[in-house]
Amino acid sequence: MDHQQPQWGSGKILQVAMPIFKGVTTLDFVGPYEVLNCLPNVKVVFVSHSAGLYTDFGTLSIQATASFDQVPKPDIVVVPGGIGTLALMEDETFLQWLRKVHETSLYTTSVCTGSLLLAAAGLLNGLEATTHWSMYDLLASLGAKPTKDRVVRQGKIITAAGVSSGIDMALQLAALITDETTAQVVQLFIEYDPQPPFNCGSPDKAGPELVAKATAYVQKQSQRFMDQFNE
Amino acid sequence: MDHQQPQWGSGKILQVAMPIFKGVTTLDFVGPYEVLNCLPNVKVVFVSHSAGLYTDFGTLSIQATASFDQVPKPDIVVVPGGIGTLALMEDETFLQWLRKVHETSLYTTSVCTGSLLLAAAGLLNGLEATTHWSMYDLLASLGAKPTKDRVVRQGKIITAAGVSSGIDMALQLAALITDETTAQVVQLFIEYDPQPPFNCGSPDKAGPELVAKATAYVQKQSQRFMDQFNE
Repeated sequence: MDHQQPQWGSGKILQVAMPIFKGVTTLDFVGPYEVLNCLPNVKVVFVSHSAGLYTDFGTLSIQATASFDQVPKPDIVVVPGGIGTLALMEDETFLQWLRKVHETSLYTTSVCTGSLLLAAAGLLNGLEATTHWSMYDLLASLGAKPTKDRVVRQGKIITAAGVSSGIDMALQLAALITDETTAQVVQLFIEYDPQPPFNCGSPDKAGPELVAKATAYVQKQSQRFMDQFNE
Repeated sequence: MDHQQPQWGSGKILQVAMPIFKGVTTLDFVGPYEVLNCLPNVKVVFVSHSAGLYTDFGTLSIQATASFDQVPKPDIVVVPGGIGTLALMEDETFLQWLRKVHETSLYTTSVCTGSLLLAAAGLLNGLEATTHWSMYDLLASLGAKPTKDRVVRQGKIITAAGVSSGIDMALQLAALITDETTAQVVQLFIEYDPQPPFNCGSPDKAGPELVAKATAYVQKQSQRFMDQFNE
């Protein structure tokens, strides 16, 4: 615990900002949301360029209730990933906000390709970090040192691997901002006793043939999204 | 495979209906959504009493794009849980819809306390089923035979345990409606190689002290919601 931690029941509420955007992967932030929103000392806000509805891929729409300038000093930032990060990496309004809030945040975190946004903002220079397994090279080109770990902590920056890893990250974060027992209560509450039907959730476990198939899938989805985005 | 299964690439699109409602637990349906929405033969629709925004607990709002009567014959139904199920269990409009769509569905599924809704609609009479660990007794009182398994299949009905278990359920379902390789590609794509920080995700693993704490938490949250609901 290397930051001033509010104690359970102390009354200090931590604001958690989750930026959402067109092309966000919903599970990236809903995993952490469901964990952190259980904590009595947390208030989550969904933030974007303006308040309103944002769609992931045309199917699921989520409401942002605040604009970036309305959330200038969140205690914690959770940046999700998704195909939309490819556009957001060049969005100076967003990147400026991210740099600014990181100056005062207690923790700055990401899930999946959200780490590409931290890197594009210059926050990961020379630091170990992770991302979706298909994006290690892009993450490295932005100045970070990619690792295959599921959750990577460097000081107050925590990055998590692809999509579902946000749950693991958020439970670790929950322990940091409350205590282990509270985080365990949350893990039990969300009955997080995972039993994946296959042993193929990482490239190392999946093997080259499945990785090739999944890579082709990622490329097809990216193209589909970019076509939609540019319409 | 005891139902006629459309083949990968056959062109037949399966409609997956996910009912949402005030007090829904978002991760209950976003887990399955993220898995099933990856499949090329699936089109997900979020359905409720009318199209519009529905909030989980006042923080996160999701858009339903169709009303129940606009989705009369979905191929698959995924019923999420959440505190809001306590009100929905007595909602005849919803229960009638659920009974009706179950007559023609390929699969009727639930996550967490969504199984209480299947049971309230009379669909689980005498069948093994699961739910959030805090609700076994209520599920039994509605005619089902609760089991502690994470995913329980009885013919075309599949129920999953609390909150996060929907991911495991949906990957099994993905294999049923496509094939194992496709489901494995999806598991790798969402990098579902879970590494829970604690070994306490089920009551048996957590032990009585943590279960007591989590039970108190569930009761407090239920009360908070009901107060809000009745405002």
